[in-house]
Amino acid sequence: MKRKSKTLINLKMSVIISNISESLPAFLAENQYTKIHVIVDEKTQRHCYPIVKPLLPKHQVTKIKSGEANKNLSTCEAIWAGLTNQSLDRHSLVINIGGGVIGDMGGFCAATYKRGIDFIQIPTTLLSQVDASVGGKLGIDFNGFKNHIGVFKIPNAVLIDPVFLKTLPFNELRSGFAEIIKHCLIRDAAKWETIRKIDFEEQNFADLIAHSVAIKEEVVAIDPTEKGLRKILNFGHTIGHAIETFYLGKPKLHLLHGEAIAAGMICEAYISFKRGILDQKSLERIEEFIFAVYGKATIKETEIEEIIALTAQDKKNKGKEIRFSLLEGIGNCIYDVSVSANEMKESLLYYIG
Amino acid sequence: MKRKSKTLINLKMSVIISNISESLPAFLAENQYTKIHVIVDEKTQRHCYPIVKPLLPKHQVTKIKSGEANKNLSTCEAIWAGLTNQSLDRHSLVINIGGGVIGDMGGFCAATYKRGIDFIQIPTTLLSQVDASVGGKLGIDFNGFKNHIGVFKIPNAVLIDPVFLKTLPFNELRSGFAEIIKHCLIRDAAKWETIRKIDFEEQNFADLIAHSVAIKEEVVAIDPTEKGLRKILNFGHTIGHAIETFYLGKPKLHLLHGEAIAAGMICEAYISFKRGILDQKSLERIEEFIFAVYGKATIKETEIEEIIALTAQDKKNKGKEIRFSLLEGIGNCIYDVSVSANEMKESLLYYIG
Repeated sequence: MKRKSKTLINLKMSVIISNISESLPAFLAENQYTKIHVIVDEKTQRHCYPIVKPLLPKHQVTKIKSGEANKNLSTCEAIWAGLTNQSLDRHSLVINIGGGVIGDMGGFCAATYKRGIDFIQIPTTLLSQVDASVGGKLGIDFNGFKNHIGVFKIPNAVLIDPVFLKTLPFNELRSGFAEIIKHCLIRDAAKWETIRKIDFEEQNFADLIAHSVAIKEEVVAIDPTEKGLRKILNFGHTIGHAIETFYLGKPKLHLLHGEAIAAGMICEAYISFKRGILDQKSLERIEEFIFAVYGKATIKETEIEEIIALTAQDKKNKGKEIRFSLLEGIGNCIYDVSVSANEMKESLLYYIG
Repeated sequence: MKRKSKTLINLKMSVIISNISESLPAFLAENQYTKIHVIVDEKTQRHCYPIVKPLLPKHQVTKIKSGEANKNLSTCEAIWAGLTNQSLDRHSLVINIGGGVIGDMGGFCAATYKRGIDFIQIPTTLLSQVDASVGGKLGIDFNGFKNHIGVFKIPNAVLIDPVFLKTLPFNELRSGFAEIIKHCLIRDAAKWETIRKIDFEEQNFADLIAHSVAIKEEVVAIDPTEKGLRKILNFGHTIGHAIETFYLGKPKLHLLHGEAIAAGMICEAYISFKRGILDQKSLERIEEFIFAVYGKATIKETEIEEIIALTAQDKKNKGKEIRFSLLEGIGNCIYDVSVSANEMKESLLYYIG
């Protein structure tokens, strides 16, 4: 009897970084779709859809509400109803125009509509360009847990155009930069040495997008369904996700994904340091750079237990073990490291300092 | 740029037809699961779970309401909540004990929980043993459309034991028999010659289950995601599904899946005959045998238009074309045949006679 996982994912990805006015018509010319359905939110409808619309044949649009709070089943129902009302068949295409929420949720809806129809991602935030749109992780939040329901499926194409970043608020751009930092820390020490000496506003984003996409594509190609190596992409995310989830439950506080991950990276670099696999100088440089870009997230000592409890639902866990991806020196990351609640607490105390 | 479908499915299936008291312990012994979650409905909880329970280590159970009417998102939410409350991680196992509804929906929930955890099917109806449990089609109904939301994913094992059929009502057993008839008609003329001469009650079900599973496995292995050959498994299902959906909307009428498919097979055999690809004698034999086993479903002439309209959402369609799988002689089936509304109407008029 065979017991291996039964879903394989084609490793060929089609991430195109170029002008959308070239890449989108080229994609459509190579395919014969019966119908096209576009998914936007109120922000991308206003700022991004006008750039894409003239490039498309006849299509219909579903508009959803922006924001992580709407990345849920009830919004999926609205999207599925939109696809159904247009009578999309299996030879149709869904185009997701937006950040990670639209990409993850619109992709999940396309991947499950009639058991899966084609979809492409047009990521419009830095975060989604360097992270969410690459790698085929799709899904929605459920009962307060992030990306709790979803599937792995590679989009038919990811069309990245830095032009969309011009419409992005400062904090959104900064949020995406956290994943760029992460890609350097886990996989490219030389690049980290470059970026850590440059102010955030002065970074070369076109170059960094290509760099991040290349690293993510390489890692995902080796381990598409996160059985091993892909877990390194979760550096900063075990505690980062917990902080993000904690903030979600506090309506008066706001913290973007990358801002939470930035905090998580300091905590997890500290745990790496305490384990003796990351030297103090490296920890201090990470800390210094991240605090300079992001400042410090408001976390009270009395809230630490609640944050630690939230790591129990992390997808990398096995049984009761909370498993981390930790830095073994800059540019190298190990995974499946069991970390105790005490170590997490210490790292959060270090962070809030 | 690659444009092919990006999800592949491992062709290795693990359909085991034997005593559950042997196959289930053997499966569990070969795997190391951190937790086990069982999904049942009130019927299988009473009749089937007591047979399975002593074979399992510690586990939790989610009970859902039986019936196609509950194969929806709201029941999925209850299942996902059950998995979440038990804090199932990615090294856990879901066991679905039941008919097609439980298998399709429990499988879909497992395939989307944390982007997919292992699951096995223990089909307890004849219909699910010969059809639903084999082939990796998972999903739920949505806005009145059957299996509208779902994924393709092969279960880690399908454990079939005819012992469960003993608890099955007559009409459930007869419903499953329709798919056995279908498998003979589309792929094995000799077997059709055998079964059509035997009364329903006298059939050798253990033999027929193995026969149906072998045919379905062969077809699915060639074309797992239904790009081509697999569509032959939909013979009888274009009109059959429409009839089934039509009945779902009429609370006072009851028609099981196989009973609707039986009617659909007569209609679609008639269309095959009218197209000149099936001889009259074969049509008459199909009709005679199916009417002898199932009688005639109540369909009024005035309801035909409504039934035909429901074929517009069939997953095999391309654009406005309603595409059928038709018999080209007994034991051979062709697919992607565009059929007009007029032809469908004629076939339904022929059926109601």
